[in-house]
Amino acid sequence: MIGTRPAGQHTVRQHNAALVLGAIADGPGTSRAGLAAATGLTKATVSSVVDRLIAADLVAEGEPEQRVGPGRRGTVVSLSPTGPHGLGIEIGVDYLASCLVDLTGAVRAQEVRYADNRTPRVFQRVSAFLRKARKQADALGVPVGGVGIAVPGLVESGLVRLAPNLGWRDVDLADRLGGTFTVANEANFAALAELWHGTALPDFVHVSGEIGIGAGIVLDRALFEGVRGAGGEIGHLPVAPDGPPCSCGANGCLERMAGQEEILRLAEADTVDELVSALESGDDGALSAVTTAAGHLGVGLSTVVNLMDVPAVVLGGTYARLEPWLCEPLLAELERRVPSTAWSPVRVVRSALGTGAAVRGAAGSVIRGILADPEHHLTTHSPSDQDARDR
Amino acid sequence: MIGTRPAGQHTVRQHNAALVLGAIADGPGTSRAGLAAATGLTKATVSSVVDRLIAADLVAEGEPEQRVGPGRRGTVVSLSPTGPHGLGIEIGVDYLASCLVDLTGAVRAQEVRYADNRTPRVFQRVSAFLRKARKQADALGVPVGGVGIAVPGLVESGLVRLAPNLGWRDVDLADRLGGTFTVANEANFAALAELWHGTALPDFVHVSGEIGIGAGIVLDRALFEGVRGAGGEIGHLPVAPDGPPCSCGANGCLERMAGQEEILRLAEADTVDELVSALESGDDGALSAVTTAAGHLGVGLSTVVNLMDVPAVVLGGTYARLEPWLCEPLLAELERRVPSTAWSPVRVVRSALGTGAAVRGAAGSVIRGILADPEHHLTTHSPSDQDARDR
Repeated sequence: MIGTRPAGQHTVRQHNAALVLGAIADGPGTSRAGLAAATGLTKATVSSVVDRLIAADLVAEGEPEQRVGPGRRGTVVSLSPTGPHGLGIEIGVDYLASCLVDLTGAVRAQEVRYADNRTPRVFQRVSAFLRKARKQADALGVPVGGVGIAVPGLVESGLVRLAPNLGWRDVDLADRLGGTFTVANEANFAALAELWHGTALPDFVHVSGEIGIGAGIVLDRALFEGVRGAGGEIGHLPVAPDGPPCSCGANGCLERMAGQEEILRLAEADTVDELVSALESGDDGALSAVTTAAGHLGVGLSTVVNLMDVPAVVLGGTYARLEPWLCEPLLAELERRVPSTAWSPVRVVRSALGTGAAVRGAAGSVIRGILADPEHHLTTHSPSDQDARDR
Repeated sequence: MIGTRPAGQHTVRQHNAALVLGAIADGPGTSRAGLAAATGLTKATVSSVVDRLIAADLVAEGEPEQRVGPGRRGTVVSLSPTGPHGLGIEIGVDYLASCLVDLTGAVRAQEVRYADNRTPRVFQRVSAFLRKARKQADALGVPVGGVGIAVPGLVESGLVRLAPNLGWRDVDLADRLGGTFTVANEANFAALAELWHGTALPDFVHVSGEIGIGAGIVLDRALFEGVRGAGGEIGHLPVAPDGPPCSCGANGCLERMAGQEEILRLAEADTVDELVSALESGDDGALSAVTTAAGHLGVGLSTVVNLMDVPAVVLGGTYARLEPWLCEPLLAELERRVPSTAWSPVRVVRSALGTGAAVRGAAGSVIRGILADPEHHLTTHSPSDQDARDR
């Protein structure tokens, strides 16, 4: 877009729109005068930006603010509840999930459908699931401002380079599904959701155990993706290098030794519900399976802590459900293997979001994108564009 | 210092001094007029700063610059060859090393003394070694501007929290040796030396194998020390979790499996020189020992690359000498264990500095400290102070 208009003017517009919308998101129910004070912009500039944001239904005008002194009462503005929503889709190995969030990040609708996605038919299935989720938004009378897709694999510039548990290599979802999406690793989306809506910690590693094991690393309130964007991969950390073969071709990888499938196999349980019931009733086999997995997880995570000196581990996904049995042996292994825990303790905490984190992060990333650059949304989402993109 | 004078004035002084000295370091042999152009400061400000830097012998006046146009020829200035030098001391497990560098970072003197430092007498020994190194500087007629000490352990705010191979816990070298030092992990100093004087890579992990194995991680031309400063620890990555016990209390740590002692043991060699001779003559046992170590090193480093997506491994210390035999099997293991190498290759390169990197980094860090904040040096290093600190 930047090339199509004078750069200076566009940059200032872009900056001011983001500044005003950010101030509205941070302090909903503020008047234009309050926004001018909060942003340092003139009232005229704020009003002009607010009017454009209202026209695009990013912002809605509410009740006049309460009188706190002499003078005219201002009309307060907030993020619009009917404005663009973020739609998140998660392609799990054995489920599809969708989540629709409004501009405040609040969940408006969500759905999970279980099915083995290790099939070439997965793309048709995802397309149908996506259409259904869009219809759900239509039924709620809200527009979809963008779609984020979480995948259990390595993503480079929107291309799914490798998703071993789905059997994917170099899959272009824009091409396969038809449309424009924000595609990212599910563990990274989950860590972002945890940062936005869960723990208040500024630095943590979020580890989620499903069929695969993903980690999202947050340093100083930002996702750490490594030098070239493929960082944070812990599923294939070698925790038992001479162990059984993993789907990736190596041996004894963390997810082979401590993933959901291995825990269920060791515990002789068919589902996570069954496993949790067995754990609650004190079943020795189930407890031993989780303790074994905790040991392997501790070996893998000790590496993350030794390398990055991260002060907290957040247990997400299936691990969140297993936390009461996982936490203690995991912490013990970490303390045994991380010398600096002697003076810099590490915490292990349970994710507040659990298995829904990744899809919520995918939906939320759409919203964060709009809030960070509303000007881009304003110039690309005229109603006719939206129709052309959606149908 | 900042509290003892008006903060505003001090900050401006500090900033201008660093700016001018930095420009001199970047372009030695520049006139005051050239410095004014390079820094954007007025000629009067530049002249005042340069005069103070000359008085402190941080900068020396040279020949008049070559005439390139009409007008008076300026006198060129450069970093002073007789100005404060950086003294680095490395406390290795089985050696002590010293290195003296001038303000340009060039090595003026160095020494290595072999002896087993796993003894309580180590502090007396280091004191004597430090005195000797200072005398060497006296003999060269140059002042020591500061001392950096490299240790094979975890350092927190100058305190050596843990150096398992020396048997140290919570050792305060300032107290034990008497003096003020910049103390840091040897692997971090080595990585910095590699960044300053070796490879031109912006992102790499420098791994050095001695008795212990240390790694220094450089991201975007800066040392990555983790959230709380204890990051980059790879010596105790578990590469064979059920393997033989390590000095740290855990099992099968990287340094237990791929450190110098284990390689020598497997190769039935007494010294690294002997090992290299055996390798050069194609000795099967020696080759097999190095290949085994390369496999373990590959397991450990695959973790670093999977987590941080670092594009290069620099082999330092003893590994630099073993590079011809280590490189190929290490790269093979990395490619097997790092899925992203399929589209983002990783390089393995030999350090240009080898075993001298850590002590050179320790010496260089003193110089970098002076260049980054010359004002601090000017106000703390009057000749009388220097005498009081040195004796």
